Amino acid sequence: MSEFLPPLEKLIEQFRKLPGVGRKSAIRMAFSILELSDEAASDFSAAVIEAKEQIHNCKICNNLSVDEVCPICSDSTRDHSLICVVEDAKAIMAFEKVRGFRGVYHVIGGVISPINGITPDKLSISELVSRVKLGVKEVIIATNPTVEGETTATYIAKILASTGVTVTRLAYGIPVGGDIEYADEVTLNRAIEGRRTFN
Amino acid sequence: MSEFLPPLEKLIEQFRKLPGVGRKSAIRMAFSILELSDEAASDFSAAVIEAKEQIHNCKICNNLSVDEVCPICSDSTRDHSLICVVEDAKAIMAFEKVRGFRGVYHVIGGVISPINGITPDKLSISELVSRVKLGVKEVIIATNPTVEGETTATYIAKILASTGVTVTRLAYGIPVGGDIEYADEVTLNRAIEGRRTFN
Repeated sequence: MSEFLPPLEKLIEQFRKLPGVGRKSAIRMAFSILELSDEAASDFSAAVIEAKEQIHNCKICNNLSVDEVCPICSDSTRDHSLICVVEDAKAIMAFEKVRGFRGVYHVIGGVISPINGITPDKLSISELVSRVKLGVKEVIIATNPTVEGETTATYIAKILASTGVTVTRLAYGIPVGGDIEYADEVTLNRAIEGRRTFN
Repeated sequence: MSEFLPPLEKLIEQFRKLPGVGRKSAIRMAFSILELSDEAASDFSAAVIEAKEQIHNCKICNNLSVDEVCPICSDSTRDHSLICVVEDAKAIMAFEKVRGFRGVYHVIGGVISPINGITPDKLSISELVSRVKLGVKEVIIATNPTVEGETTATYIAKILASTGVTVTRLAYGIPVGGDIEYADEVTLNRAIEGRRTFN
């Protein structure tokens, strides 16, 4: 006999899959679901499905979006000749909080990591090149300052060299080994101001 | 404009409702849902609904159960003349891990707390009295060792006095102010062994 009833065990296993949730936390979460009203539980369940169904990738930059084109790409007051390349949509949220950046973004969807089977063709790099050819002046590469992030940045800079666009990278205001998502706003602002030409 | 897309914000709010989940954790969890496959997300969503739909309270002891009567109440090898009274089903899980206890349980569904509007009639106490009258020899009161838990224990002991049943309480092996759910197995075993008559 398992420790919990099968439907409860199943729910605990689902919570275990969330980032940062261990067995004890998952048990507490599962029990808290059982304590919800039927309506609250179905709201919870529906929110998961609705988020998955309604949120897609922007067809221009891959940012998360409810519409075909995200609010940033469809904003004509922003500088569309300046593209900030990020690993994922979470990094965009961090940049948007700063408000110092008025360009647009391009989400490549990860970093080059042959050990995990992520080769450059798995990332949205050719789409970036196509966008750059439409008259972009500068590309800021803002991958995370990790080994893979750096490799990816170097790779993209090399690919973009032929297009003649200015390629910059964030200044090392961000602590090496850290994660852009958790950088404080001042550090992130310094990193934008101090960006330098790719060499 | 809110920080996140409305369906994402809604999902974050749902995760915030889980115990021990702050805004940052909720954001990470919501993003992790977006990264799931459609199938995995719908499994997650379904697990919430299924747990709510399939798990009910045992009609005898209020323990969580898929069937009308829980596995413990329908187990004829257990001592049905010994009832352990607990606040919630989570406490039963803790006792069951010990395996030293072979009686049955009664979940009262909380503690008396007038400040939160929980009066004795909101708890399953009259059902406990009815069970006791069917020939129970001993009732161990195992509410949590908090002020409300103690008050509830005293109240139940008083109510049961007229039935002539032996009413015992757990020994103070459990640290005062703690929570039975998190007690270690040795402490809980000591508490069962050292139980004493209610005075």
